Amino acid sequence: MPPNRNHEPERSTAKPVVALCGGIGGAKLALGLYHVLDPDALSLILNTGDDFEHLGLHISPDIDTLTYTLAGKNNPKTGWGRRDESWTFMKALAELGGETWFSLGDGDLAIHVERTRRLKAGESLSQITGDFARAFGISAHLLPMTDDPLRTVVETPEGAITFQDYFVRRKSKPAVEKIVFEGADKAIPSAAVMDALQLPDLRAIVICPSNPFLSIDPILAVAGFRQALINCSAPVIAVSPIIGGQAVKGPTSKIMSELSMPSTARAVADYYGDLLDGFVFDQVDEAEASREPLPFLVTQTLMESLKDRKKLARDILTFADELNARPVKTGFATQQQRKG
Amino acid sequence: MPPNRNHEPERSTAKPVVALCGGIGGAKLALGLYHVLDPDALSLILNTGDDFEHLGLHISPDIDTLTYTLAGKNNPKTGWGRRDESWTFMKALAELGGETWFSLGDGDLAIHVERTRRLKAGESLSQITGDFARAFGISAHLLPMTDDPLRTVVETPEGAITFQDYFVRRKSKPAVEKIVFEGADKAIPSAAVMDALQLPDLRAIVICPSNPFLSIDPILAVAGFRQALINCSAPVIAVSPIIGGQAVKGPTSKIMSELSMPSTARAVADYYGDLLDGFVFDQVDEAEASREPLPFLVTQTLMESLKDRKKLARDILTFADELNARPVKTGFATQQQRKG
Repeated sequence: MPPNRNHEPERSTAKPVVALCGGIGGAKLALGLYHVLDPDALSLILNTGDDFEHLGLHISPDIDTLTYTLAGKNNPKTGWGRRDESWTFMKALAELGGETWFSLGDGDLAIHVERTRRLKAGESLSQITGDFARAFGISAHLLPMTDDPLRTVVETPEGAITFQDYFVRRKSKPAVEKIVFEGADKAIPSAAVMDALQLPDLRAIVICPSNPFLSIDPILAVAGFRQALINCSAPVIAVSPIIGGQAVKGPTSKIMSELSMPSTARAVADYYGDLLDGFVFDQVDEAEASREPLPFLVTQTLMESLKDRKKLARDILTFADELNARPVKTGFATQQQRKG
Repeated sequence: MPPNRNHEPERSTAKPVVALCGGIGGAKLALGLYHVLDPDALSLILNTGDDFEHLGLHISPDIDTLTYTLAGKNNPKTGWGRRDESWTFMKALAELGGETWFSLGDGDLAIHVERTRRLKAGESLSQITGDFARAFGISAHLLPMTDDPLRTVVETPEGAITFQDYFVRRKSKPAVEKIVFEGADKAIPSAAVMDALQLPDLRAIVICPSNPFLSIDPILAVAGFRQALINCSAPVIAVSPIIGGQAVKGPTSKIMSELSMPSTARAVADYYGDLLDGFVFDQVDEAEASREPLPFLVTQTLMESLKDRKKLARDILTFADELNARPVKTGFATQQQRKG
């Protein structure tokens, strides 16, 4: 049965859905899911491997991007930071000879300063993130993947570089040889994350079209997380961050080449491997999809408008419901069940 | 000899001058001194008793006021903070439910964030303050009174209140019973402060018309500071913060009443006591000045324009030079030498 592309799906929007999410790319689909589901049905498990201490402030770039996006406060031009932002702080910091390679808007600073203050007072990142989301009127559950420190480090020919140094200061230019998650052996998922994965009526776990290596792998690296995903009753569905051999934004495709992987959607599906119950290809990759052993969906994954975001979200949920309806959750016997 | 009020003084502007300074009132005279002296001849010893930790940031209100004022970046309307300021941070902080009773402008935040970062990295407040002043093109020496913690606490009928809580949050409303300087027994003057007080050709030590109890007393409370002032070869001259029985700004007059002191300029001179070699009255207090046992100067101390600030600075320096020229530095024998 092809997905119903012309009508709103008839199915309930109340059943909970979990999405794993990095920053800008993931936020687009997260917003779509947030719009099509009941207000509190969506739980987002957010990458904190990008978190870092800068100017003495604890900065959580992916949490902030998701918070601003779901609150409608995001800067639509940059993808990161706030709309209607001012930049007086950065100008004054430059006058003082401070470090200015990481742009911090005046309004954005509030979340960093207040988060840092509360962390130092002993509150958890989960608690703070939840409070900020509620303060912004967000009813989705924003869940940092862990309350423990886990830091993404990129090994390059120039040596090991911390994530923001690689991604922001060096604009992802150094070749990636290996990606390491410092602290992953000691970091455990937060209680809220484990609860979300174990909801009895969970409809789907969606891996957003974020960078698999820099945004999703840190989440999967948290001790016990990968196994919790495999044990989960709901279908795990990844959306390809690669469309026609290219990433919509960011260095995903470049890193795949550097890691000697073909820069294709199928290579992403292979990379996630036995974690997945289904994979979503963009329509331009329909030919490639036909060779995919996993159950798959072919649809428009490029999200330019809010309408695109909602449409993709609905398509994924319909796909998930069909996977849920099958007697055997996964398996090669049912491969290529759907061709979009 | 009356002071030369119609001409620039002929004397050198190169000899060093030290001024003890609180915030807004003191900054006015400090700016005047900075303008009439050679660029590097002025050393300002700044009150840090008002310093506090707020939102995890180390805030030094008096240092900042002096830095902004001497850099020409001060907000002329408020007296504190920066001109051309934006307030996006405070609005965003309010959205998050953060504490907003202490106003932090976006540009102002840079100095707090960068200071806090450098303090945590182990640099001294003196070093940081000096670097910031140089970054702003200030050639005067801005010297925090101490690099050690010393905190002004106001004892009131409502209990002991930290300075900013008293001054900003409660708008100086609680009655002052006593003022305590926590840490004063352990705080010592910085090396730069001691060097400034011991300069062999020091022309004058000026106590600016700051609040004696809240701005100058914390400086005098630093272990050894008062004695260093008494030992100093240069004349110590205080400028009355009381004009016609009232403070130009702030709670000085109110506190004098609460401490059962007459709210007069002479009471301020008495309060400083044997520390002083000379005292400066405003011209409206000429009658009162005539009963002052100390050498004194009567002139316009109300500073509305930059011209007023420079004029008062010159008058004080001339007064100091005359005190320096006398065979005996202080003493009742020479009282009422000058009547303005």
